[in-house]
Amino acid sequence: MAEKQYLLTPGPTPVPPQVLAALAEPVIHHRARDYRAVYERCLARLAEVYRTRHDVLMYTTSGTGAFESAVANLTSPGDRQLVLSAGNFGERWAGMARAFGADLVHVKLEWGETPEPDDLRAALADAGDVRVVYLTHSETSTGVVCDVQALAAVAKEAGALVVVDAVSSLGAVPLETDAWELDVVVSGSQKALMTPPGVAFVAVSPAALEAAARSTSPRYTLDWERTRKAQAKLDAPFTPAVSIVRALDVALGLLLEEGLEGAFDRHARLGRACREGAKAMGLELFSPDEERSAVVTALRAPDGVDATEVVSTLRDRFGITIANGQGDLKGKIFRIGHIGWFDVFDITTALAAVELALVDAGAEIERGVAVTRALDAWAEHSRV
Amino acid sequence: MAEKQYLLTPGPTPVPPQVLAALAEPVIHHRARDYRAVYERCLARLAEVYRTRHDVLMYTTSGTGAFESAVANLTSPGDRQLVLSAGNFGERWAGMARAFGADLVHVKLEWGETPEPDDLRAALADAGDVRVVYLTHSETSTGVVCDVQALAAVAKEAGALVVVDAVSSLGAVPLETDAWELDVVVSGSQKALMTPPGVAFVAVSPAALEAAARSTSPRYTLDWERTRKAQAKLDAPFTPAVSIVRALDVALGLLLEEGLEGAFDRHARLGRACREGAKAMGLELFSPDEERSAVVTALRAPDGVDATEVVSTLRDRFGITIANGQGDLKGKIFRIGHIGWFDVFDITTALAAVELALVDAGAEIERGVAVTRALDAWAEHSRV
Repeated sequence: MAEKQYLLTPGPTPVPPQVLAALAEPVIHHRARDYRAVYERCLARLAEVYRTRHDVLMYTTSGTGAFESAVANLTSPGDRQLVLSAGNFGERWAGMARAFGADLVHVKLEWGETPEPDDLRAALADAGDVRVVYLTHSETSTGVVCDVQALAAVAKEAGALVVVDAVSSLGAVPLETDAWELDVVVSGSQKALMTPPGVAFVAVSPAALEAAARSTSPRYTLDWERTRKAQAKLDAPFTPAVSIVRALDVALGLLLEEGLEGAFDRHARLGRACREGAKAMGLELFSPDEERSAVVTALRAPDGVDATEVVSTLRDRFGITIANGQGDLKGKIFRIGHIGWFDVFDITTALAAVELALVDAGAEIERGVAVTRALDAWAEHSRV
Repeated sequence: MAEKQYLLTPGPTPVPPQVLAALAEPVIHHRARDYRAVYERCLARLAEVYRTRHDVLMYTTSGTGAFESAVANLTSPGDRQLVLSAGNFGERWAGMARAFGADLVHVKLEWGETPEPDDLRAALADAGDVRVVYLTHSETSTGVVCDVQALAAVAKEAGALVVVDAVSSLGAVPLETDAWELDVVVSGSQKALMTPPGVAFVAVSPAALEAAARSTSPRYTLDWERTRKAQAKLDAPFTPAVSIVRALDVALGLLLEEGLEGAFDRHARLGRACREGAKAMGLELFSPDEERSAVVTALRAPDGVDATEVVSTLRDRFGITIANGQGDLKGKIFRIGHIGWFDVFDITTALAAVELALVDAGAEIERGVAVTRALDAWAEHSRV
């Protein structure tokens, strides 16, 4: 039989067939009328998902590229900036700010910790005049989703601009760009937005645009002002990935049809189902056992079991792709993504396969309970 | 009837159905085994098309983004660099080098001129110690394809690194990265490589990589060394546009099946057919009437006719997209692209529609001859 494949990683994520069909449509020119209609609708839908009245700038790049636009547009060499990290992506932003010559304060928590407002408040008090604070809403490497609203409030109090990595959180967990006064919010097509990778976005506040006008780092394709001016005329300064934008438009339509609150609720329930199922078979959670852990569930490999082997077994025996740990956590944890086009049967598939792989690996786990517990947790009273 | 649409612009270009079908395949993870097989084959095929033994680095960005990688990796503020331009894209590279703080010598020819080795030799003699020379192989805004081999030889003689914009030329007209000692050659997926926009490439010589190690411009996603190291392990430092890479792999397979020499010959014949047909109806060529003009044919709008109107009529009445002039040439010329998945009937379609639109606009042109002349020119003895 042709192998059935299951993409259960926290990005790229599975893409609905309607979105794949849009990708296969003949290519259109990015300055033609048909594209402009798609582009306009797509930008409007993005603003709705971001919950912002301001510009959402679109780039043909990865999520990291869009984040780089924030660093490039907000940094002059020597600027005092602060990164609060607790995992791989947060640390990447620190490396990037340093590459652009920022005078960086890096508050580097252990991987898996949840950054708390007090951590940030203390660090800002020590650091003096910090202009930009970089936060990671959902740290995909650990499964931690922080209270970005509270953290942003602390940063704003200190007079800093707030840049948020929402690559894996936008569309999955609540995020209010304007209401929470987030200056810059970065995301990408390939997570909860159910589209292949290739297009990424940056919501920019007027204050962020003003700061960008003063910053001296060289940049061209990622320059915000150039993109903003072009978008205002429904133009793009450089040939965009038209096929992916068209697919994104369809995917955003699906998301908004479900409704953002509905999507947030579904993701919270998916996370709960995954955690409850995993705990039922005796696995230890690495990501926190709380409502916000709705993006990716990170599980510790049982004693004596290598997570790398679990990941390989799932791939080789069942056609299922889940994610290994990153950095020092490689081999120690494995991660089941549930962002975007996921329902509870993706969770039960993942749990059933993990159960089989762990039995094979000789782990002492409880058989035959995870799937039922996950289904029960899914069915329990929902959050909204 | 559902409108039939014809994309006859010099990029994005039409994409074969096999390539569109690959786009619609379910998304796979960029670190999964199935993707690595595609990636490895795609990189090998790219090197074959580039005719290089060195690295071809792949980026999720536009052609301009890949060009920016050259500027970012080769420029320290104050470096003496030279841009030889004769159109929109050449001038863009000048703007970009300035944005990165280069001490720029901009040899700015009129749009539509063909840069000659003597222009470059004289400029280099005047300029003194130039480290990097930027050349545009095919200037898409004017239809001019220069003798980049001869120009590169002059630059190399002067001890400069040579960076070539081959965005619209790679795969359409002869280009020998190694044999012509080109240090950096930039191209993109959406032209002769018959793939939607979103992925772009940079071939880098060992000398270019050495220079990059010394240059101080800040860069992160576009950093060559980071990408080179990852590619050496068949990894990607950031999530690539996996769907487009898969489509590109199929398209490169089609191109190499035709054979590069076959593709060059076909493009030369397409250009000849387009020029001969256009001249037969009495139109004046803007792009040169020579064998190398195989990428895009630029035609002057007849007296009293606005090229913008010709472009609109083709779009509105016939579903055909061709390109207007850019910059000061807007309204004065129109451009018919013939790069990538084109055969002679695309040319006759374009010419027949242009003929009808010009008659409508009241131009005095010869009716009923262009298509036949184009078919005859296509059939005439081919170049190889």
